[in-house]
Amino acid sequence: MSSSLKSFFKPRGIAVIGATPTKGKLGNVVFEVLKTRFKGKVYPVNPKYREISGIECHPTVKDIPEDVDMAVVVVPAPIVLEVVKHCVDKGVRGVVVISSGFSEIGPEGAERERKLIEIIKGTETRIIGPNCLGVYDAYTGVDTWFLPEDRMARPPKGYIAIISQSGALAAAMLDWAARMGVGIAKAVSIGNKADVDEADLMEYFVEDPDVKVIVIYLEGLRPGTGQKFVKIAREVTKKKPVIVLKAGKTEKGTKAVASHTGSLAGAYQIYASAFKQAGIIEASSVLDLFDMARAFATQPIPRGRRVAVVTDGGGMGVMATDALESLGLILPETPEDVRNRLRSKLVPFAALGNPIDVTGSVEDEHYVAAFEEVLKSDAFDMVMGIFLMQPPLLTEKLPDKIIEVFRKYRIKPVVAVTFGGSELTLKLIRKLEEYGVPVYEIPERAAKALWAMAYYSEIRKEISKDT
Amino acid sequence: MSSSLKSFFKPRGIAVIGATPTKGKLGNVVFEVLKTRFKGKVYPVNPKYREISGIECHPTVKDIPEDVDMAVVVVPAPIVLEVVKHCVDKGVRGVVVISSGFSEIGPEGAERERKLIEIIKGTETRIIGPNCLGVYDAYTGVDTWFLPEDRMARPPKGYIAIISQSGALAAAMLDWAARMGVGIAKAVSIGNKADVDEADLMEYFVEDPDVKVIVIYLEGLRPGTGQKFVKIAREVTKKKPVIVLKAGKTEKGTKAVASHTGSLAGAYQIYASAFKQAGIIEASSVLDLFDMARAFATQPIPRGRRVAVVTDGGGMGVMATDALESLGLILPETPEDVRNRLRSKLVPFAALGNPIDVTGSVEDEHYVAAFEEVLKSDAFDMVMGIFLMQPPLLTEKLPDKIIEVFRKYRIKPVVAVTFGGSELTLKLIRKLEEYGVPVYEIPERAAKALWAMAYYSEIRKEISKDT
Repeated sequence: MSSSLKSFFKPRGIAVIGATPTKGKLGNVVFEVLKTRFKGKVYPVNPKYREISGIECHPTVKDIPEDVDMAVVVVPAPIVLEVVKHCVDKGVRGVVVISSGFSEIGPEGAERERKLIEIIKGTETRIIGPNCLGVYDAYTGVDTWFLPEDRMARPPKGYIAIISQSGALAAAMLDWAARMGVGIAKAVSIGNKADVDEADLMEYFVEDPDVKVIVIYLEGLRPGTGQKFVKIAREVTKKKPVIVLKAGKTEKGTKAVASHTGSLAGAYQIYASAFKQAGIIEASSVLDLFDMARAFATQPIPRGRRVAVVTDGGGMGVMATDALESLGLILPETPEDVRNRLRSKLVPFAALGNPIDVTGSVEDEHYVAAFEEVLKSDAFDMVMGIFLMQPPLLTEKLPDKIIEVFRKYRIKPVVAVTFGGSELTLKLIRKLEEYGVPVYEIPERAAKALWAMAYYSEIRKEISKDT
Repeated sequence: MSSSLKSFFKPRGIAVIGATPTKGKLGNVVFEVLKTRFKGKVYPVNPKYREISGIECHPTVKDIPEDVDMAVVVVPAPIVLEVVKHCVDKGVRGVVVISSGFSEIGPEGAERERKLIEIIKGTETRIIGPNCLGVYDAYTGVDTWFLPEDRMARPPKGYIAIISQSGALAAAMLDWAARMGVGIAKAVSIGNKADVDEADLMEYFVEDPDVKVIVIYLEGLRPGTGQKFVKIAREVTKKKPVIVLKAGKTEKGTKAVASHTGSLAGAYQIYASAFKQAGIIEASSVLDLFDMARAFATQPIPRGRRVAVVTDGGGMGVMATDALESLGLILPETPEDVRNRLRSKLVPFAALGNPIDVTGSVEDEHYVAAFEEVLKSDAFDMVMGIFLMQPPLLTEKLPDKIIEVFRKYRIKPVVAVTFGGSELTLKLIRKLEEYGVPVYEIPERAAKALWAMAYYSEIRKEISKDT
């Protein structure tokens, strides 16, 4: 079933139904973005034009002589049904209906949406939308988002897949990810999700080798789809982590959902227990969502919840300890043999417990020695490295030196924290992120990412045992 | 009593005891930084040299012919007592002892620290430290931090005063604030706080017109100073907000505090109730601390807890609603007359409740109309503006247009949220921050800042009533 979604991400050709040469118009932006970014063929469709930007324009999708796997529909609502019928006739497997004017506008639109679904029933055509931004695939260049790059930058290729019930939020996420250098694999704005929904996409992404972690922005599931969602999520989370940001948790929030997507947010507690049952991790904000996703995208899954903290700032070490312990993670004492070896390598007043505090008198080699030890030691499953780059003896060679140690011991998750702003700090961030260690501003956020990985490691064992 | 601290922030002259011409050494960095940044006279003191960097060097502070209000001590621990005695003799009012080797190293150091305090007893000399980075004053240029600017950038002038028990953390805060453009008035690393402590500094800052909000990083109060702290804080919070970040909340965190500053972190619950009694606001992380401080530094105190949310992203509006309601803030319905006026000014499918959702079809003027209404209306005490800058019709003129509206109605606190990364987003952030509206990445953080202001408004009324 999920393979039926392949046409949305790896189509052989894409038709833009409603393409127009008029600059700034929706049908022009979608066509131009696809023409620039998509690696395959793009066909403009519009009975009013013979050609657009030098490419032959066909009156209907049926007139295209080649096979077309995917269509993007940007015509006004009243003619959407007709053009989608053409898509079915042509054998188009994936149709993204960007047009609005469906269930989100009231009973009349809901009736139109019902008819839309009627058209594809029993066929091999699937619909994403209506009332959505559609599909973004960093690998194949499918990009139906009608936002030019100066408004929404495109992020680097990565391993995170985004499924969002809010198009505006997903657009902001991509734009943000581009600036932060956060790699994204795919993003789908599912709009009214008349056909393809969160569950279908999870099922597709779980088999997609480009995707390591799936993140979902959810206001409410469509009535009657709860069981399907939990059942599929339970299978997916056996293989890949799924993180959900659920909006509409409070009474007023639920009301705000109704006026936004018209979803029935329902009692939040029902959602929370469904997520738990399905092995889904819940995020508390958009940043929390990406904090956890960045760790999953780059780090191996830990064997347990024992964390070593290495820091050159005692205060940051205390805050890391508070955060880790509050989340139920464990900070074991540094084993005696590790202490003994470190004693001769660090400054005499370094703290050798856990956190290991290399102090403000730290030199590059002290960090190297400490990481070497905690990464090798059986006492720890995960490592948090805190680097305040203000101490006078640290040099700009530190990032490369510690990356060399990280590279030697790749079996444990490592996350980093740095707080500052001078060139040394910025360089550390760039180098670590480039190598593949997520960097956070504060220990609380790094701790949450480690918690998510430990939690996932445990629920995956749980769920696999159960079934 | 607090006026006795004036010499640390507005001294007529500063002696650097232990100044040296050797580049990279502590006594050189402190001297060079002060010489560059301090607006008054700086005197090197060291019996080994006749001059340093072309300035006459005196064997002791007593040999300086002019009056000296402040001294920075960077000599080894064993001779600190002697040079501080000289300072008392000379009538130096403020002595910053950067040197370590006191109570933080064990009984021998504790004895030395006891003798240090003995020296100033009954005199007008006060000590900050030992084992600290000392004083930073953005206005007068007092800057005893032995970190050159390429390692720790200096932030722009502002209204936030920092008191920190951790020098490394405070240094990272200043460096971070510099990069983020967060204005700082003063920062004091108090080290072992043998004499001057958090309470003394609060008492000084409450009278300082450069300071609008006081933030404190605290691991533990010195034994026996709890009552003084609460008593003074209670007076201070009647006039200015105080935000504390308490580290060492958990069992392991408390242990980590012991190995960091040697403070008795004690049971966190005792601290929490003391803060409450004193009208102090607690922060949950360094970012949370600055999120709240930035709002206090720029916004008026609200009259109540009723918030209007204006957004162009429905999802962000839902998350804002959840966050505000979870914090106990109120989102009143938009009054009928406001709705009526907005109906003709926004797109027909805009949501006019609260949040007011101007939608992805937003134009600059829609924001202008919405802010005009909510800022004027008696139904709201505070405003959160959410700006996703991806929608196609927004222009780069938006920031100036909304700032014009903000300028007209300055009596209510306004905070902004934006999530993205393209030039339009970055420009909005720059312009709003420059004007004086704090911008946050996610609604949850903006909500927390609004909560802090509403909470402070209430506790101030409470405390003033009580006493």
